[in-house]
Amino acid sequence: MTREPAELFKAACGGDRRATGRLLSLVERGGADGDLVAQIAWPKTGGAHVVGVTGAPGVGKSTLVDRMAAAAIAEGGRVAILAVDPSSPLTGGAILGDRVRMNSALGAPAGKSPFIRSMASRGQSGGLALAALGAVRVLDAVGHDPIIVETVGTGQVEVDVVNAADTVVVAVSPGWGDAVQANKAGLLELADVFAVNKSDRPGAADARRDLELMLDLGDHPDWRPPIVETTATAGEGVEALWKHVCSHRLHLLETHSLEARRGGRAAEEVRRHLHNRIDGLIARPSEQVRQLIREVTEGLRPPSEAAQTILRSQPPGDSP
Amino acid sequence: MTREPAELFKAACGGDRRATGRLLSLVERGGADGDLVAQIAWPKTGGAHVVGVTGAPGVGKSTLVDRMAAAAIAEGGRVAILAVDPSSPLTGGAILGDRVRMNSALGAPAGKSPFIRSMASRGQSGGLALAALGAVRVLDAVGHDPIIVETVGTGQVEVDVVNAADTVVVAVSPGWGDAVQANKAGLLELADVFAVNKSDRPGAADARRDLELMLDLGDHPDWRPPIVETTATAGEGVEALWKHVCSHRLHLLETHSLEARRGGRAAEEVRRHLHNRIDGLIARPSEQVRQLIREVTEGLRPPSEAAQTILRSQPPGDSP
Repeated sequence: MTREPAELFKAACGGDRRATGRLLSLVERGGADGDLVAQIAWPKTGGAHVVGVTGAPGVGKSTLVDRMAAAAIAEGGRVAILAVDPSSPLTGGAILGDRVRMNSALGAPAGKSPFIRSMASRGQSGGLALAALGAVRVLDAVGHDPIIVETVGTGQVEVDVVNAADTVVVAVSPGWGDAVQANKAGLLELADVFAVNKSDRPGAADARRDLELMLDLGDHPDWRPPIVETTATAGEGVEALWKHVCSHRLHLLETHSLEARRGGRAAEEVRRHLHNRIDGLIARPSEQVRQLIREVTEGLRPPSEAAQTILRSQPPGDSP
Repeated sequence: MTREPAELFKAACGGDRRATGRLLSLVERGGADGDLVAQIAWPKTGGAHVVGVTGAPGVGKSTLVDRMAAAAIAEGGRVAILAVDPSSPLTGGAILGDRVRMNSALGAPAGKSPFIRSMASRGQSGGLALAALGAVRVLDAVGHDPIIVETVGTGQVEVDVVNAADTVVVAVSPGWGDAVQANKAGLLELADVFAVNKSDRPGAADARRDLELMLDLGDHPDWRPPIVETTATAGEGVEALWKHVCSHRLHLLETHSLEARRGGRAAEEVRRHLHNRIDGLIARPSEQVRQLIREVTEGLRPPSEAAQTILRSQPPGDSP
């Protein structure tokens, strides 16, 4: 099993989608193999433009993402779509059959159609965000660019996942409800580009005006998020949207803020990995941890002190 | 400042409510003073019956809690109520003026009226649950018993907070909506006792039947959660509810499961403290941590490896 991730990686770089899928499964499963994949992939990452797309359910994100993918493919991109759904227990590809058909209907030749993967809840929300970040790295390392990460809802996982993107597209649709919901979840603040989708419906102008007002209240010294009206089902406005997404990447490069953004993302990823390891220390306690928790239960130690003791008694060493 | 928490603690044990309030503020603020309070309080905890009350907004939890407090006071209890509201930015006592009036209207003599405290969001949800657990410890240590912890909504923080109680009361009201919402959040599984509140309204019998059906589907070898119909505004059914709550505590003691429950709570508290410390290591990075994150950003190390290195390089030592 030790050489297999390396072989899978080579095959995936050559365009073997099945190999890419297996690498993603290893990352999602975590453990030693997942760590090995991360180690192989890591040095090759950083090339892809990672685009996050979020918004309340029902605004038409999937169709929007499929159209954006088509626009990127038309420019020669080797697109990957990662759909993250904390509310679904299903991971894999089968559920996305309709989207594959939709995408091929958009006219991409078979070899250029986007790689599509869905990731679902793994019981623990922190785990899903971490697995999604790892999956983006792998897709990047095997040569996909751009990588479009689509979230299904507007919860904390969505915010965490989308926060790791270089460019964040927040989709709303006419009618205040969506914007209010997105605002509540803190999504509007994350936006680099807004899409007012279903803009053929009444209320699109109002939605745009509300967003403009909201932007007027904020401070945007470098980049004021543009607002693009789209009707994804008809493909209208999507090219303009994609242009703004690409402009945003250029802006990040020109202002040297891509590095800062990615530094923040790296810190966040390290933090999540630390939380994961902590959870493992508690879920599968050593005799020392068991004893400390017993002492806390019996009132002999406050929990903060036990935590400090655990943190300070990890065996020194350099690698996993 | 070093002796102050000890003095406050002494005063609070003697019934000085202002001192209790200040101790809670120190715990909520965290840091060295919070740790000191925890250290003083810890050895004196374990005596109080901690009762969690949760349920969807609008089921009448506050009134139910006030009535339960009155029932406990009538039996000679020194009651504390901790109201946890992740959706509110306000912490303190002023907002609860109405409840204080309500409680005194319930006939408790001034010296025996419950100690009431609200705790609100501190930006980070994990922080609120941790602060609430710490507050329960302090209330326990200064001599309050029972401690009724009331949550406002049905989110993850609520589940975390209520999970730390000895006895969990889940309140629903007639109409499936509430039960569905509570079920979605995983609250129904937590219940040791159900209250069907507003039972004077149509649909109370249906709500009870639905809960019975749900219980029939589960496995309850030791304790099948009783379902009590209440009309808190009129005080009806609350004495029966309180009796079931007390029976549950007796059951925990008789079956020696209180210790197991509290062991689980201690482990969870230690885990949260560890997360908190990790977050501090990342938010205020040492030069070593900064360098590791730089290396992750530049693709020189995968984040899992950086996490392991950080975990293994905490200076050894025994106390904070």
